[in-house]
Amino acid sequence: MQMNPRLSGLRCIRCDSLWPPADYPEGCPSCLEAGHPASLECRYELSADPAMPLPVLDPVTLGEGATPCLAAPALAQAEGVGRLWLKCESANPTGSHKDRMAAQLVSRARLAGATSVAAASSGNAGVSLAAYCAAARLEADIAITRDCPPLQREAMERFGARLRAFEDSLSRWPYIADLCRNHGAFAGTNYLNPPVGTHAYGVEGYKPIAQEIFDACGVPTDIVVPVARGDLFWGIFLGWRHLLQTGRIDRLPRMHAVEPYARLSRARASGDARKNWEGVTEQYSIAGSTCTLQSLEVLSRSGGSPVEISDAAAAQARQRLERMGFAAELSSAAALAAVSPLSRSGLLDAESSVVLLLTSDGRRG
Amino acid sequence: MQMNPRLSGLRCIRCDSLWPPADYPEGCPSCLEAGHPASLECRYELSADPAMPLPVLDPVTLGEGATPCLAAPALAQAEGVGRLWLKCESANPTGSHKDRMAAQLVSRARLAGATSVAAASSGNAGVSLAAYCAAARLEADIAITRDCPPLQREAMERFGARLRAFEDSLSRWPYIADLCRNHGAFAGTNYLNPPVGTHAYGVEGYKPIAQEIFDACGVPTDIVVPVARGDLFWGIFLGWRHLLQTGRIDRLPRMHAVEPYARLSRARASGDARKNWEGVTEQYSIAGSTCTLQSLEVLSRSGGSPVEISDAAAAQARQRLERMGFAAELSSAAALAAVSPLSRSGLLDAESSVVLLLTSDGRRG
Repeated sequence: MQMNPRLSGLRCIRCDSLWPPADYPEGCPSCLEAGHPASLECRYELSADPAMPLPVLDPVTLGEGATPCLAAPALAQAEGVGRLWLKCESANPTGSHKDRMAAQLVSRARLAGATSVAAASSGNAGVSLAAYCAAARLEADIAITRDCPPLQREAMERFGARLRAFEDSLSRWPYIADLCRNHGAFAGTNYLNPPVGTHAYGVEGYKPIAQEIFDACGVPTDIVVPVARGDLFWGIFLGWRHLLQTGRIDRLPRMHAVEPYARLSRARASGDARKNWEGVTEQYSIAGSTCTLQSLEVLSRSGGSPVEISDAAAAQARQRLERMGFAAELSSAAALAAVSPLSRSGLLDAESSVVLLLTSDGRRG
Repeated sequence: MQMNPRLSGLRCIRCDSLWPPADYPEGCPSCLEAGHPASLECRYELSADPAMPLPVLDPVTLGEGATPCLAAPALAQAEGVGRLWLKCESANPTGSHKDRMAAQLVSRARLAGATSVAAASSGNAGVSLAAYCAAARLEADIAITRDCPPLQREAMERFGARLRAFEDSLSRWPYIADLCRNHGAFAGTNYLNPPVGTHAYGVEGYKPIAQEIFDACGVPTDIVVPVARGDLFWGIFLGWRHLLQTGRIDRLPRMHAVEPYARLSRARASGDARKNWEGVTEQYSIAGSTCTLQSLEVLSRSGGSPVEISDAAAAQARQRLERMGFAAELSSAAALAAVSPLSRSGLLDAESSVVLLLTSDGRRG
């Protein structure tokens, strides 16, 4: 395990300033100072190596990645699109895409000399970080909400994490901020409000998804991703951009963001991702009142759209997937539910080739 | 999806008689008649194709197989063996190795013109068959026991299976026998008592595990597998034997069977696998009072041993795995618990290279 010697720095996605390789859990220091939290993205020296560059080489692993990307011709026909694939991230070790981020982030924490990782999560991220911290022999402090599903909580505890419960989602962040700023913990999630994307080194872990989709089905026209604060959304985009920059593809797929109620569409309309937009949803993994600049950037740079999916529509989509043999948590099934509204608004049609991200099977819901 | 044209017949593992390609859910007809249920194994015409031959080509898939095989050097050191790997079957779509069998078996059911699959299972096999039947648009009738964990039951129902609950394990088999013999259902599990291995075409689905282990770590000296009626145990053995017969390896690994109480050791001592050996265990997935001839054959042909692992030892091993970031059901963790007694009996030492089969993460336990 070592840091990638080709990692040359980080660049702000908002102000373009460059920063030397280091840990920036709060994103771009300049933009934070200006009151606009903004993600940093990793920069690497050019190389003839065709592999997707990642910050940590030979990271701690539990076997994450290389998940199935399955053609679903019957769904494509039913939805009136040309081709459709399901990218099944539940095949990851703890059952969600988060394992890809945890592998990089926890490895970096260990290389940086941290002894603990602190995170605010009542779901897949918390379980994943707990497992990877166990694998890396780091301590994990997870701030959960009181309504955290018992099986999620139990899974974190089995992996040895310390849990602390809070009344609601936003109240967890000051606790994590204190652990990270004052007690030497490494940040496993955002803790700012308004929020910023998770540590850039962690988000890089999602880039191989683009390569895996490309290997399975070329460049689709459209990719549909459930989005809360957009680490996965942004990470997959970075992967496609790498393929474009290295000349292996000649266009980017459009990337659409599925959300349970209007956050990104309002942020896009106002040009400001920093507000709170309350809503009620059972789509646990993409709930919350905030969004992030990085999600807006994916939409604008890829030409995609936000799509609001009701819990009822997501539940119906989940049942359709189950009757095809696929378990999916509600927020994952929402990706399927999004195909129809995207078609109605003219963004998808019989020429479209579409990949749906099934982020988790909801095994601990 | 089609039957493999190279599949030339089936041979009895007990009497060596040859049978034409067809469905033999009760194993060798001659041996059954003689009161000795015995598995059949598939025979294929020779081919220059290096791929592991399977009965159904392009089967129904949910993305099974190609699971991680992870080196665990810290565990190897702690256990005093040379090298140690964890083969993580929980990465399969419904969370266990059973998906590999279900893909072949359910595909065959569909090609054979069946409209339903019937199976006795309160656990991973039932969930897996339910999911693959959904994928293949077949009906699934699953006979469960009244103590079936609620999450297993719910998973089967979500995939659209019809469930029927019985007082105990053995009482399920006559119901399944009736569905298969008199109502046209395709057998998804054994229903004989004394039992036989599951349909030979299904068990073939486990052969690629040998190839995957070989690709990840060459030929280990020893493989440790949790065993109830031994489909997985036998299927992995068939895979290694294929590698041997095609000249890609020059020796077989020893294969050891982990069980919660003495069944195979008693069967081996008496030379008869047909008795009932009662025992009480929480190692749900390898419980039951029966064993099979195919398991005895793996032991004798590979030179392996049966190992009894108590629930307490399995629970301790599970906690060790959890503190390394691996979730494992009790019967999977028993594979780790088996290393120490195998060492004490002189079968493993510092020269050994050992693969442990982690069959499931117990996500619905």
